[in-house]
Amino acid sequence: MIDPAVLDSRNARARAWFDALRDRIVAAFEQLEIDAPAELFPGEPAKFELKPWVREAGGGGVMGFLRGGRFIEKMGCHISLVHGTFTPEMAANMPGADKDPRFTATGISLIAHMRSPKVPAVHMNTRFLATQTGWFGGGADLTPTLDSQRSQEAPDAVTFHAALKGACDKHDPAWYPDFKARCDEYFYLPHRKEPRGIGGIFYDHHNSGDWERDFQFTQDVGEAFLDVYPRIARGRMHEPWTEADRREQLIRRGRYVEFNLLYDRGTMFGLKTGGNIESILSSMPPEVIWP
Amino acid sequence: MIDPAVLDSRNARARAWFDALRDRIVAAFEQLEIDAPAELFPGEPAKFELKPWVREAGGGGVMGFLRGGRFIEKMGCHISLVHGTFTPEMAANMPGADKDPRFTATGISLIAHMRSPKVPAVHMNTRFLATQTGWFGGGADLTPTLDSQRSQEAPDAVTFHAALKGACDKHDPAWYPDFKARCDEYFYLPHRKEPRGIGGIFYDHHNSGDWERDFQFTQDVGEAFLDVYPRIARGRMHEPWTEADRREQLIRRGRYVEFNLLYDRGTMFGLKTGGNIESILSSMPPEVIWP
Repeated sequence: MIDPAVLDSRNARARAWFDALRDRIVAAFEQLEIDAPAELFPGEPAKFELKPWVREAGGGGVMGFLRGGRFIEKMGCHISLVHGTFTPEMAANMPGADKDPRFTATGISLIAHMRSPKVPAVHMNTRFLATQTGWFGGGADLTPTLDSQRSQEAPDAVTFHAALKGACDKHDPAWYPDFKARCDEYFYLPHRKEPRGIGGIFYDHHNSGDWERDFQFTQDVGEAFLDVYPRIARGRMHEPWTEADRREQLIRRGRYVEFNLLYDRGTMFGLKTGGNIESILSSMPPEVIWP
Repeated sequence: MIDPAVLDSRNARARAWFDALRDRIVAAFEQLEIDAPAELFPGEPAKFELKPWVREAGGGGVMGFLRGGRFIEKMGCHISLVHGTFTPEMAANMPGADKDPRFTATGISLIAHMRSPKVPAVHMNTRFLATQTGWFGGGADLTPTLDSQRSQEAPDAVTFHAALKGACDKHDPAWYPDFKARCDEYFYLPHRKEPRGIGGIFYDHHNSGDWERDFQFTQDVGEAFLDVYPRIARGRMHEPWTEADRREQLIRRGRYVEFNLLYDRGTMFGLKTGGNIESILSSMPPEVIWP
């Protein structure tokens, strides 16, 4: 059982980290908007809109939206610190919730859909959840929209995986293969028999017994994401695309929608239990086709 | 318990009805493609493509697709006659399947997404399902995409409801209010607190004890649909629309996707149990935005 004062301090530190990471992500992605070449991406660079929200059942956060950008077609980056009481059904499946169903959770979640089919979509989400015990969870995964970029050997895939491996290996060389496998297993569309993207890492119920170490790991995942994704996006920023590429991207986005609404536990759970619709559904791609 | 020879005969008659209805639907919708005015709907009229499919677990059917039409943007109209064995979990919830989990099912399902935002999308589906007992189920519902057409008092809603009421009232005046209420309850998005469209009728486990009467009712529902929807579509065929109307339509289609992937039992069941992806997902709208 966590001492309440210790829990308060941990939540405050985790939330402060997520806030600071969000600020740096906003700055980095707004810079991408500014730096994208005008001949491929006409118009004015877009900026994030930050919007506080209050959760009726306790807590709240700040939603961040970038819509209709010239380089970033749609992006959400949200922070939350919420508290509440699990229903008996949920408590039964949550470590440390069997005697006392109260919980706190703080985290950051991000999804970016890019205008160019050459630039992969990306998702990152990390969180600290506490009941009478506590753990970190989250990960990051990359979704290139063109088949030619969707192998494990594709340059962006290699770059993305290397960055996340670096974050894991600083802590334990056994983590990366485990978390990569869990990501591949999770971001998979059984009805299509195909992966959502090229993967990344996914971890949950992560509690090594050393909170400081686990918090540092989640920070390292955030740092790795912030380092690697803008590098990948910049590397593709000057590449033109064809109508056929755009069509392939819009079809691929349909698979993204199918995954999020049919299988994503966070989305389904949030939508069916009165979560914040605006932030949950900000993951939906801006434009999609099912021809 | 149904005598096997009787069941075979009922399945054959139901399947023959669904086949004949499909042929008439195909003819009626291809005529809409032909008759739509060229100034609003440029290009050549599209035709249906019929494509047989075989179900690995037993049976099969014929899928019908109309894609990229000038008036009908995307439409699927599928026939099936399948047989198999329910899993124990499913058998537990199916009348007549507790002692013998074998089943047969034959039906027609249709979804049409129209190019003009002024012309509502529509769904119709009827089926005959048999275990050791048997019943009909299905219905039809209308989804206008513009807010101005989405009230119960809107002319198309009034027309659509009147036609289905006519089909019900021929059999029992108590049915229509019941089946309309079930439709409103089923085609509802709790996370949006909004209906999918303006409703229609929805019935299931429909077995009055008189198979001929129940079969006649399902035929009357098909006839009502075939009469009323083309009338509604023709009534709007000459109305121009604005960019803002099209945008509203594409956003509304996003809600249609959300409903089908989050809540529609048929879609979720089919996708998660190895159904025919191509026909199940032909319900997805051709172009969608989540701005």
